[in-house]
Amino acid sequence: MSTIQTATKEFRPDKGTQTKAIITDAALRLASQIGLEGLSIGAIAEVTQMSKSGVFAHFGSREELQISVVREYFSRFERDIFFPALDASRGLPRLRAMFVNWMAQVAQEIQSGCIFISGAVEFDDRTGPVRDALEQSMKTWLAAVRRAIALAVEEKHLRADTDPKQVMFEMHGLILVLHYEARFMKSGRSMERASTGFENLLKQYII
Amino acid sequence: MSTIQTATKEFRPDKGTQTKAIITDAALRLASQIGLEGLSIGAIAEVTQMSKSGVFAHFGSREELQISVVREYFSRFERDIFFPALDASRGLPRLRAMFVNWMAQVAQEIQSGCIFISGAVEFDDRTGPVRDALEQSMKTWLAAVRRAIALAVEEKHLRADTDPKQVMFEMHGLILVLHYEARFMKSGRSMERASTGFENLLKQYII
Repeated sequence: MSTIQTATKEFRPDKGTQTKAIITDAALRLASQIGLEGLSIGAIAEVTQMSKSGVFAHFGSREELQISVVREYFSRFERDIFFPALDASRGLPRLRAMFVNWMAQVAQEIQSGCIFISGAVEFDDRTGPVRDALEQSMKTWLAAVRRAIALAVEEKHLRADTDPKQVMFEMHGLILVLHYEARFMKSGRSMERASTGFENLLKQYII
Repeated sequence: MSTIQTATKEFRPDKGTQTKAIITDAALRLASQIGLEGLSIGAIAEVTQMSKSGVFAHFGSREELQISVVREYFSRFERDIFFPALDASRGLPRLRAMFVNWMAQVAQEIQSGCIFISGAVEFDDRTGPVRDALEQSMKTWLAAVRRAIALAVEEKHLRADTDPKQVMFEMHGLILVLHYEARFMKSGRSMERASTGFENLLKQYII
């Protein structure tokens, strides 16, 4: 047995974990379409062709299922947006990579919907663990964006008086309007406008 | 009878119109809290303490009720945001007034929610007359913002090469992130950040 085969075997998840991952994946796809609030053990049983009790064995409640979906969404968000940006060098190149990857994610979600955006609307007037998971995920990501901006200041790519929170706020605005105009208004040039907006924003701080 | 009394009498709506207005008002308040999709003839009958058939006599369907809510929301939006801004002089003063009034509206809605934002998420993957009414309202408003920017260029307050659609896009982004961060993230300094963002945006074009 080669090393690769051994490694594969070692990392192969057990059947229970695999089933849980299949359910989470189906739930994530469903939540992207109909919202986190549309999720139910029954609906997931239907799309995965499992019994309700089978789904229930992995997720004790609808809330637990919703939280797993938020966590899975966030780990894919990190995998697709944050981690690849770390390959770019510190400072402006990494900050640009983060924004470009973030835009690309929104572009992909123009058909399916974004859980961070629809979830914020669904849960903005509630309390509880699902809202907390959503808010915590968004806070973690925005903090990473803020750190990337601060690093670009440290690297002297951006002016010393740059306010990382302000730049982060404006970057987030460009992402939200990109999503709104592309998905709801079906406006064709939103990607270009978000890109231009980001370069306009940077221009004010670039040394 | 004085002239004012005569005028009041002439403009007094009939009972049917008054009842319809009361229902629409209750529906608008409910939709702000639970979304347009949460509206039903039954729920409105409950909050207005009318019979279902009484509500039904004014709105033949749930869809008709939803459309009336969108129209009422839009006419209040015009009344509170657009019309007062017309008192400011053409160009930059009027554009600033529009943004300030728009921010104030979002600030007011931090507790209740905004139908243009939540409605976009509820209806972004659908077709039909409710979505059309929402999209048309938003398009009308964004066109008014764009015209105000174009007027500021005509008045030579903003540079001749200003792209009104780009500025409108970025203004809309600031409003969306203000709503997201203040309402969902409960971030305290969002109004200040949106204001700063708007001045940063204008600074790039002001002559």
